[in-house]
Amino acid sequence: MKLRNILAVSGAAAMLPGLAMAQDAAPDIQPYILTTLLFLVGGFLVFWMAAGFAMLEAGLVRSKNVTTQLTKNIALFSIASIMYWLVGFNLMYPGDFNGYFAFNFVPTVLEPVGLAAADASLDYASVGSDFFFQLMFVAATASIVSGALAERIKLWPFLVFVVILTGLMYPISGSWQWGGGWLSEAGFSDFAGSTIVHSVGGWAALAGAIVLGPRLGKYRDGRVNPMPGSNLALATLGTFILWLGWFGFNGGSQLAAGTVGDITDVSRIFANTNMAAASGAVAALLLTQIMYKKVDLTMVLNGALAGLVSITAEPLAPTLFGALWIGAIGGVIVVFTVPMLDRMKIDDVVGAIPVHLFAGIWGTIAVVFYNGDASLGTQITGILAYGVFTFVVSLVVWIILKGIMGIRVSEEAEINGLDTSELGMEAYPDFSKG
Amino acid sequence: MKLRNILAVSGAAAMLPGLAMAQDAAPDIQPYILTTLLFLVGGFLVFWMAAGFAMLEAGLVRSKNVTTQLTKNIALFSIASIMYWLVGFNLMYPGDFNGYFAFNFVPTVLEPVGLAAADASLDYASVGSDFFFQLMFVAATASIVSGALAERIKLWPFLVFVVILTGLMYPISGSWQWGGGWLSEAGFSDFAGSTIVHSVGGWAALAGAIVLGPRLGKYRDGRVNPMPGSNLALATLGTFILWLGWFGFNGGSQLAAGTVGDITDVSRIFANTNMAAASGAVAALLLTQIMYKKVDLTMVLNGALAGLVSITAEPLAPTLFGALWIGAIGGVIVVFTVPMLDRMKIDDVVGAIPVHLFAGIWGTIAVVFYNGDASLGTQITGILAYGVFTFVVSLVVWIILKGIMGIRVSEEAEINGLDTSELGMEAYPDFSKG
Amino acid sequence: MKLRNILAVSGAAAMLPGLAMAQDAAPDIQPYILTTLLFLVGGFLVFWMAAGFAMLEAGLVRSKNVTTQLTKNIALFSIASIMYWLVGFNLMYPGDFNGYFAFNFVPTVLEPVGLAAADASLDYASVGSDFFFQLMFVAATASIVSGALAERIKLWPFLVFVVILTGLMYPISGSWQWGGGWLSEAGFSDFAGSTIVHSVGGWAALAGAIVLGPRLGKYRDGRVNPMPGSNLALATLGTFILWLGWFGFNGGSQLAAGTVGDITDVSRIFANTNMAAASGAVAALLLTQIMYKKVDLTMVLNGALAGLVSITAEPLAPTLFGALWIGAIGGVIVVFTVPMLDRMKIDDVVGAIPVHLFAGIWGTIAVVFYNGDASLGTQITGILAYGVFTFVVSLVVWIILKGIMGIRVSEEAEINGLDTSELGMEAYPDFSKG
Repeated sequence: MKLRNILAVSGAAAMLPGLAMAQDAAPDIQPYILTTLLFLVGGFLVFWMAAGFAMLEAGLVRSKNVTTQLTKNIALFSIASIMYWLVGFNLMYPGDFNGYFAFNFVPTVLEPVGLAAADASLDYASVGSDFFFQLMFVAATASIVSGALAERIKLWPFLVFVVILTGLMYPISGSWQWGGGWLSEAGFSDFAGSTIVHSVGGWAALAGAIVLGPRLGKYRDGRVNPMPGSNLALATLGTFILWLGWFGFNGGSQLAAGTVGDITDVSRIFANTNMAAASGAVAALLLTQIMYKKVDLTMVLNGALAGLVSITAEPLAPTLFGALWIGAIGGVIVVFTVPMLDRMKIDDVVGAIPVHLFAGIWGTIAVVFYNGDASLGTQITGILAYGVFTFVVSLVVWIILKGIMGIRVSEEAEINGLDTSELGMEAYPDFSKG
Repeated sequence: MKLRNILAVSGAAAMLPGLAMAQDAAPDIQPYILTTLLFLVGGFLVFWMAAGFAMLEAGLVRSKNVTTQLTKNIALFSIASIMYWLVGFNLMYPGDFNGYFAFNFVPTVLEPVGLAAADASLDYASVGSDFFFQLMFVAATASIVSGALAERIKLWPFLVFVVILTGLMYPISGSWQWGGGWLSEAGFSDFAGSTIVHSVGGWAALAGAIVLGPRLGKYRDGRVNPMPGSNLALATLGTFILWLGWFGFNGGSQLAAGTVGDITDVSRIFANTNMAAASGAVAALLLTQIMYKKVDLTMVLNGALAGLVSITAEPLAPTLFGALWIGAIGGVIVVFTVPMLDRMKIDDVVGAIPVHLFAGIWGTIAVVFYNGDASLGTQITGILAYGVFTFVVSLVVWIILKGIMGIRVSEEAEINGLDTSELGMEAYPDFSKG
Repeated sequence: MKLRNILAVSGAAAMLPGLAMAQDAAPDIQPYILTTLLFLVGGFLVFWMAAGFAMLEAGLVRSKNVTTQLTKNIALFSIASIMYWLVGFNLMYPGDFNGYFAFNFVPTVLEPVGLAAADASLDYASVGSDFFFQLMFVAATASIVSGALAERIKLWPFLVFVVILTGLMYPISGSWQWGGGWLSEAGFSDFAGSTIVHSVGGWAALAGAIVLGPRLGKYRDGRVNPMPGSNLALATLGTFILWLGWFGFNGGSQLAAGTVGDITDVSRIFANTNMAAASGAVAALLLTQIMYKKVDLTMVLNGALAGLVSITAEPLAPTLFGALWIGAIGGVIVVFTVPMLDRMKIDDVVGAIPVHLFAGIWGTIAVVFYNGDASLGTQITGILAYGVFTFVVSLVVWIILKGIMGIRVSEEAEINGLDTSELGMEAYPDFSKG
């Protein structure tokens, strides 16, 4: 998304087009209403991604861990909602601040009921809609972590990590760019969050996967033991949900819908977002056919998602052909890096690190091909800054959690499945296991 | 939702903001267009709740009853659509009427194609959008009944009850408040229907559960025999769908989107609705961990839904902190009242009565904390009026249906499952049962 | 949808309502913004239908073919997205052309970023939103083929067919009507595509089903061997998704939302679309009860879909009662033609031909009852033109594909299931088969 604060300063002039001229007496309220509407519609679409992550992950874990995975997903979204209200939103969008860290620990306060036009930020949108929209992004970050660490992490340490990630880590690093901090000053460009949302989730997941270690038996005698997901219909549904939600994710990040230019840009973003997902899927389809002689559905699903992540840093500037090749490279990245992680014995259950971290890095670099204002050096600076901060802090937090409460279930619990051991509730109790 | 009729009278002045001043020659059509758009978007979101109820219920029944539960859900929605057109909508919104019952049995008629601005209710929205939106609410009421009575009710008597509920009972009692009847005159306040929609569904379900009796073997030798749902992934999906749909349910009930004040209020409602769901889920998460030492996913799902029901009577006035604690109490109510119903041997398969009736009552009372116009006495009057009317009429209808056609399947059919006995079609025929 | 080109010519006058009068200095940008918004919201709803088809089909095939069906659905959508950009969109909407075939093979180009109001088609909508919306329709056509040919077609020949269908066949025949070609000149009327989208998919599927032949053992010893779908919960979810998406499909096809008349028409379309789905479902519910003494859920689902297809050729003109009976006849058609196809030994796995082709023909004829501008003769001309063209070309393409690469898996592969043989990946590996 564009920088909220700069927008708020310069928007008043930019957002009052021709129409305003005829209305010198009254302020033009339409941009405010339409941008607020964009945030509400975009926000509910991004909310829907929470269901997408839940279904994708529930479909890609084994049946004995499905209830746990579902519980983690609904719990993390709920916790993110509360933490982002309690501290996150104002920490991330503090208004003026020193560039690295805004000491602004106050809960979000909405406008009063029945706001008068005279009291509204007519050059932007309602605080309620903005908060609603931004909140959904932090939840997406936490969902990414959930998938990678599935099938062996304890519920409660994971949820404690979510509290820290959504209340502190994501808002602090997010403030560097979207809050008007040092990276936005430096000219870093990340339209809807290839780095700020997706890579951050990926780095936190990577740190967790390293501290946690692979699932029992995943890497045995030098071989990778496949542990196929229990329900590919759910995984496919989850992917479609995420694809749908992404229109809100990228489209809403235009942060304005009240002028001809803005709504046309939102359209362009929708079309590009769809194209990148499609080309990511097709790339994975062709590549798995060529490399393995058989199409791999989970790669195709992750290819679509990687295409989406790849276009997220710059969904506006590219042509449709640009979106096609940027997304396709995202799909290629997934097909090559999923086995690479396995060779490194980093066990990422759903492929979240290839999709969100590696394709996120690629997308952030790809900005320079179509956005003339972006420089490769600054893009790499941003990628490294988010990477170092998130990876190091996550590593420390995971190690502390490991020391204090333990983060991994017992061997017996892992073999029996977390649903029985952690929750005492099976996801599919009526069906016998194969 | 606010009172449609009063709005229609006073709205003309309130809804023409600054913008209108510059346009003394032409009427301002933007509020009409935007409110119509709010109803269409809100309406399709609430439509989506029909899928949510279907998935939630299909996930929480045993596999042998899934096809029947799915059939009931798509059938009840379809029947509600027809009945609300045939009599419901005009019975519920009769314009002027005597306060208790409008003898207004006429099908809904939409505006002509290509309506001219001069012929439109420019201070409100199109009839088509209003009908579309309101229709979705009555379907939600019927869905609530479906879940509670699962796994032992016959298909056709249930559908006959749906005809009566959606064509007569819901519209008549709904007219008391939203149609401008006696309760709205008395000052009762129920913004989007904690009582009018959710409690009404809950009361009808309670009456049905009592007449129908518990499932075979549910309460045996003084113990409660757990009958776990067959697919918690579907149940979780259903909950996410309902959560998403609720933004339309509560947000659309603002009944206006064309002014700065209204769209900002809609934003506030979205943010509060999300918060209440989140806090309801977290409350159930913490409470089941504390009480049972293990998190109970179905309680977390129902906690989120109870949070949503709790905020529905007043999603606008509370602060985010208000939404948090109102929703959290909803979650607590569910955790305590699900076992309470079991102790009373009232068998509610999916927890619909705790979620929709008990949390609905709570939400209706909670209005008084943030809405200065509401009085506790009037809120209780409204709760009792809806309760007595719906419970008594439902009881009579269920008893008559029991006498005429029987409402419960045979013991053998119940043991074998309704899918085989009632429909001859299994939901998951390829999988062997555990 | 109405004719895009004619709209673009005559729209300028029609779309500037009262509001414009007060703004003689500045052009009215609101209709452009609102119509663009209609396309974006309508487009994401129709996108969602891709998930609906995927779930419906995954639920109606046997568990051994689910992964393949999912793969085909996400692949076909992705391929359609690319082909429609590469040639389809400009082939279908060439501007001026000779009426039968526009030699216009150029990829889609969007407006520049930050379009100025002076450069926009203020009487229509942004190209990006239009492309996004239209693209979703071609994907729906391809999805229809996918369902009918399930459980025995090879993956790659199917995908090659999708390339031809979405890049050439659908755009060429679509140009006859929506591109301003000879059928639109002749007065053919098909608002949102009962014929242009649904019948076309159905004809392509019929040709494929004939060339491909029925599944092994489906018709044996003169009897029809039922092969029940493996997951009716998914199939029901898919139906609800399609129903939801159809509001965008039909509502967005109004192609305008910026005037009182247009947004009121969109509302009317939403209400009629819902009614036709509901009555189609109820018709199938009652009819299967009467004919077979047991309700058949898959017929109810297909009844709802047939109701939707039936109203798609004219969702605006009918009254709600008109939508009810038009949709109900759609439901009746499905109940009678599903067994009819079986008697003809045409094996349509999900009932796509009854739903999309037969109900599509019915819907196209039904236009004459409420739309005074339509003549039965012209409607039949259109139905035949699309039928002959699509069926013949599809037949040729299927036969060529059969000759070149073979379109059917081996007997052994079919018996073992396509998931093992074609993809080496089961959809539900944890569950033992019944």
